[in-house]
Amino acid sequence: MPLFNSHVEKLSPPPVPAVAAWGRAYDGKQGPLIDLSQAVPGYPAHPDMLRLLGETASSLAFTGYGPIEGETKLRQAYAEHFSEVYGASLGMSNIHITSGCNQAFICAAMAVAGPGDTVLMTEPFYFNQETTLTMMGVRTAFVPCAAENGFLPDLLDIEKAITGGVRALALVSPNNPTGAIYPPSLLEAVFRLCRDKGIWLILDETYRDFLPAAGQMPHGLFQIEGWEEVLISLYSFSKSFCIPGHRLGAIAASEVAVSQVAKVMDNLQICAPRSAQAAVAQALPLLADWREENRQEIGRRAEALKAVMRGLNDWKLDAIGAYFAFVRHPFAGRGSAEVAEQLAKRAGISCIPGAYFGEGQQDYLRFAFANADAPTIALLEERLKNFSLS
Amino acid sequence: MPLFNSHVEKLSPPPVPAVAAWGRAYDGKQGPLIDLSQAVPGYPAHPDMLRLLGETASSLAFTGYGPIEGETKLRQAYAEHFSEVYGASLGMSNIHITSGCNQAFICAAMAVAGPGDTVLMTEPFYFNQETTLTMMGVRTAFVPCAAENGFLPDLLDIEKAITGGVRALALVSPNNPTGAIYPPSLLEAVFRLCRDKGIWLILDETYRDFLPAAGQMPHGLFQIEGWEEVLISLYSFSKSFCIPGHRLGAIAASEVAVSQVAKVMDNLQICAPRSAQAAVAQALPLLADWREENRQEIGRRAEALKAVMRGLNDWKLDAIGAYFAFVRHPFAGRGSAEVAEQLAKRAGISCIPGAYFGEGQQDYLRFAFANADAPTIALLEERLKNFSLS
Repeated sequence: MPLFNSHVEKLSPPPVPAVAAWGRAYDGKQGPLIDLSQAVPGYPAHPDMLRLLGETASSLAFTGYGPIEGETKLRQAYAEHFSEVYGASLGMSNIHITSGCNQAFICAAMAVAGPGDTVLMTEPFYFNQETTLTMMGVRTAFVPCAAENGFLPDLLDIEKAITGGVRALALVSPNNPTGAIYPPSLLEAVFRLCRDKGIWLILDETYRDFLPAAGQMPHGLFQIEGWEEVLISLYSFSKSFCIPGHRLGAIAASEVAVSQVAKVMDNLQICAPRSAQAAVAQALPLLADWREENRQEIGRRAEALKAVMRGLNDWKLDAIGAYFAFVRHPFAGRGSAEVAEQLAKRAGISCIPGAYFGEGQQDYLRFAFANADAPTIALLEERLKNFSLS
Repeated sequence: MPLFNSHVEKLSPPPVPAVAAWGRAYDGKQGPLIDLSQAVPGYPAHPDMLRLLGETASSLAFTGYGPIEGETKLRQAYAEHFSEVYGASLGMSNIHITSGCNQAFICAAMAVAGPGDTVLMTEPFYFNQETTLTMMGVRTAFVPCAAENGFLPDLLDIEKAITGGVRALALVSPNNPTGAIYPPSLLEAVFRLCRDKGIWLILDETYRDFLPAAGQMPHGLFQIEGWEEVLISLYSFSKSFCIPGHRLGAIAASEVAVSQVAKVMDNLQICAPRSAQAAVAQALPLLADWREENRQEIGRRAEALKAVMRGLNDWKLDAIGAYFAFVRHPFAGRGSAEVAEQLAKRAGISCIPGAYFGEGQQDYLRFAFANADAPTIALLEERLKNFSLS
C-alpha cells in the first residue's frame, strides 16, 4: 500500500469514540450511565431553534452556495451580539463563520502558522487543538498550568516560551479541560506580552456564555486600541444553542485576518452550511433569555458537583469553572485511562482521562458536568464512594 | 502586525467571488445575466428533498454530535448506491462522509501527503485543489492535458512525472474545468501505473452523475482486486441533489484510509452537519428517477451549447462533457481574465477565465453550461456573435 502522511498516521485515533465505547460496555448495575465525557449540554435545543432550523433547511433560499465568510445576516447579528458582550464595536467585516469551533481553530491556526512554525499552547490542552497543529506539521510548545495556580499559566513562563519560531499563543478560556476561567487582568497581561513579542493571541472562547456571573464581560481586550493586530477570538454556537450536530462556529478578528481565513475556508469547504446560519441569525436575539436561563442552570450543576465533592474524602475538585471540572482521582500511580475505563464500565460514569490532555495529567479526569442535571450529578457521590479500582 | 502563514498569504483571493462581482457590474442591456461561472445546477432541488431537509433539521435527533465518519444510514445508503454504480461491493466501512467535495479532497490529500511531499495534478486543474495543496505546504507537479488530446493526460507523461517525492496523482473525471470524460481504459491504465509506482490515485468524481449515456459505469476500477491499495474516490451530493448550500460529500476508500481520514476530519470539524446527512440518506433511493431526468436535461443543455457553437465561426468548443465546456475565445493574445470580465460586464455572460485553471490556458473560458437551461443557452449565440473586446 502507498504511504500515508506521517503527520496524520502518527496521531492516535480520536479519543471521544473510544471513551464512548467504554460507556457502552457498562453493565447498568448502578443505574443509568452518567455521561460526562464529550461536552454536550444535557438539555434539548429550544423548540423555536428547531422550528427555525426546519424552516431554513426546507427553504430553496439556502440550497445554493453562499458567501465564503458566512451569511450576511449571521455575520451582522453576531457582530452586534459580540460588540455588546465585549463593550466593543466590531462590524460584520470582523466576523468569519465556520463549521464549528474546531474549524474556527484550524482556520485561525492555518492563517498564521505553516509547517515548521511553532504555536504555543497551555498544558493541559484541548486535545483536538494539539492534534490539529501536529497534523499540519506545525510545531507545538507548551506552557504548564499547575493545579496550585488554579490551572492558569504564569506570565513569565509564557514569556520564556516565546522563542524565535513562535507565531501564536493559543489559549482557551473558560478552559477546556480544566474549566479554569482566566481573569481579565491575566488576559490583558498576556495580550500585551503577545503584542510586544509580535505574535498572535488565538483565544478560544467556546464556553464564554457559561461564566458564573450574570452579564459578566469575559475580558476587555476588544476595547484596547489595536486589538486587531494581536487578537483572534473563536466561538461556538453549538454549546449555547445546543446544536453541535449543525456545526456552527465563528471567528472575530481584523478584516485582514478574516481575508486570510476566507482563503483557508474556501479550500476547506467553500462555506459553512447555510441554512443553520440563517436560523441562528434569528435565534441569537430571540433566545437571549433562554440562554441566560441555561447559564444559571449550569451554575446550579456546578454547585451540585461541588456538594458531591465535599462529601468525598479522597476525590479532589482541583478546578471547576464554566462547563468543566478537573477532578483528581484517588488512585495515584494508576493511569487516568485505566481509572476512566473502569469508572465507565463498572460505575456508569463516563469522563475523559487526564492523560488525553497532555503530560503529567495522569491523576486527573475531566468531568463535563454541564452535560448532566443537578439530580443526576448528586448520584455521583455514592457511585464514587463505592468505587474501587480492580 | 504579526506574520501570517506565507503558504496562505501568497494565495490569491478565491476567484469565484471576484468573477461574481463582474456579473453584478453588468448593465443588463443584452437581457438577463447568463451565469455560467460557479457550478450550480440551474434547476431547483426536489420538493421532497426540501421536505426531508426540513424534517431532519427540525428534529432533536440530529442536534447532538454524530459519528466522525458520518451517519450510519447515509454511509450504508451511499455504499449500496456506490456498489450499484460501479458493479462493486463496498460496505459502509469504506465510506467517509464530508462537508462537501472540497473537504473530501483536503481530507484525502492530508491523509496521504504532508508538507514537502508532492501531489501530481493534471493541468488545467480545478483551482481549489491546487490552492489546497499549496496551503498545506504540499508540492504540486502538473501533467499537461492538451486540447489536441481532448484534454486527457498522456500515460507516458504521467509516468515521467512520478518522481521520488510523489505520493499521489489527483484526477478529476468528468473533468473540471474542461468537461473531459476519462475513458475507462485510460483510468484503468492510470490505476495500474499508480499501483506499480506505489502511489495513491485520488479520483474526484463530483460530476459522475451527469455522464452522457444512461446507466453508464464511470469505470471498472472498483472491480479490480486490490483497488483498496491504490484508489480513493471523491463525490459530491451537492450537484446531484442541487443542495451545495448544505455541504455534503463523500469519500470511498479502504477501511484503513477511512480511519486516517477520520483523524483528519475530527480535527477539521468533528463531523459533517448531521441533519442533511439523514435527509440525503432517504433521498438517495427516493430521488433516483428525478436525478436520471436531470442527467438527461443536462445532456440537452450540452446539445444546445453544441448548436450555439456550430453557429459561431471564431469561437471554438475544444471540449465539452458532463457539466462543463472549455471554450476557446477568438481573442488570442488577450488575457482570459480580460475577456471574461468584458463578457460579464458587457454581454451578460459570466464564466471563469481559463488562466485560473493553470498555465497556458489564456485562450480558454470555462462555461458551466449545466447552470442554464437550453433556451437560455441558445441566447449565447447572438451575444457571442455581437461581442467584441474593447
